[in-house]
Amino acid sequence: RRGEMAKSTQLIDNEVFRAYATYAGIVLIKMMLMSLITAYFRITRKAFVNPEDTESFGKGESAKKYLRTDPDVERARRGHLNDLENIVPFVGIGLLYALSGPELSTALLHFRIFTGARILHTFAYLIPLPQPSRGLSWAVGYSVTFSMAYKVLKTVWLL
Amino acid sequence: RRGEMAKSTQLIDNEVFRAYATYAGIVLIKMMLMSLITAYFRITRKAFVNPEDTESFGKGESAKKYLRTDPDVERARRGHLNDLENIVPFVGIGLLYALSGPELSTALLHFRIFTGARILHTFAYLIPLPQPSRGLSWAVGYSVTFSMAYKVLKTVWLL
Amino acid sequence: RRGEMAKSTQLIDNEVFRAYATYAGIVLIKMMLMSLITAYFRITRKAFVNPEDTESFGKGESAKKYLRTDPDVERARRGHLNDLENIVPFVGIGLLYALSGPELSTALLHFRIFTGARILHTFAYLIPLPQPSRGLSWAVGYSVTFSMAYKVLKTVWLL
Repeated sequence: RRGEMAKSTQLIDNEVFRAYATYAGIVLIKMMLMSLITAYFRITRKAFVNPEDTESFGKGESAKKYLRTDPDVERARRGHLNDLENIVPFVGIGLLYALSGPELSTALLHFRIFTGARILHTFAYLIPLPQPSRGLSWAVGYSVTFSMAYKVLKTVWLL
Repeated sequence: RRGEMAKSTQLIDNEVFRAYATYAGIVLIKMMLMSLITAYFRITRKAFVNPEDTESFGKGESAKKYLRTDPDVERARRGHLNDLENIVPFVGIGLLYALSGPELSTALLHFRIFTGARILHTFAYLIPLPQPSRGLSWAVGYSVTFSMAYKVLKTVWLL
Repeated sequence: RRGEMAKSTQLIDNEVFRAYATYAGIVLIKMMLMSLITAYFRITRKAFVNPEDTESFGKGESAKKYLRTDPDVERARRGHLNDLENIVPFVGIGLLYALSGPELSTALLHFRIFTGARILHTFAYLIPLPQPSRGLSWAVGYSVTFSMAYKVLKTVWLL
């Protein structure tokens, strides 16, 4: 039992892996917060999609009017989907990258820039800031993930 | 070669990691089944989105009428997207959590509650059950993932 | 420091894990390319969803006409969502599978068929090819992921 525990903590003792776990944790939590923002807009704008969600507003026609789309709800949902499309590849490729033996300073640079870019992207999407704020923050995060993928494939390539 | 094999199985010999792999496997399979449920509703309700999918129903106008949305199809799709938004963070954060050296009993508690909550969520969404069934099952799974993220960040924090 | 580096590269020295990292990297990059394809269609078809994205086309009504949906944009978006629904489970289950100690040749067979099937699926979706091209390529990738999930659960089962 003791030996097993020791083995299991080896990876977590590695500094690059700890850095990965920190930033992957932060961006995954950031992505999860999009659910709360969408729920906040659904409730304050009274814009729902499931009939069972409007039953507390009354029966029949009086509740049906809350089954509608709202620009703020849709904007938060697009921000959430964009997170899924970009943060999920970061988490997957970042894990392989962290295991491919990069320098700690290089790895931290990648993780920090990605995390900063995605937080900026969320503000640019929700406020919204004028373009190209959202486009640029998206492109920066995208490029960081590609840079890590390049390092991974250079290291592990086994077709 | 032998030595490599031994190394590769170390992680899988760890009980917490085995528990993680079991429950991550179950919820990922559950998420994949949403594709089959959506396909089932598309075929039985004859509600498609791609013109090439309706060609077996004939040419021109007779096939075009099947390019439509259907409430059951849309409901299954929303359940699938909700799984992506919640099960993907669980799988990512859960892996880091399993490697952060938690007690087996605590880890099993987290994994079991999350898995049960997400299965309930799917039934609450598809049947549908009256609210707050779906809302509560969502909130339980969400809280479990946050609890794991808190443990991960407390253990690995390296900004 | 040296000892830590050695530990961190153990996993990456394992051939099955290297094969996993290669193919997971390839399909995640393929999934990310869907963003560029969607952006390409949004720009060439002038079909946007956020008002701030059309401001370079002028003010008021002249810009508003570009806030519309386009069949090619929607098709690329559906392809991207389908990738999320299928490639994400592959990456998660594939990692557990790679750690469950499969034969290298069996693992390579799974990874290669999945990767080929998903690349075919993208072409079948975007061109589009007549059915059942897209359906079959989807089903092949789906079955490969299930086969890996079966191996994982058989190996690690700890409820």
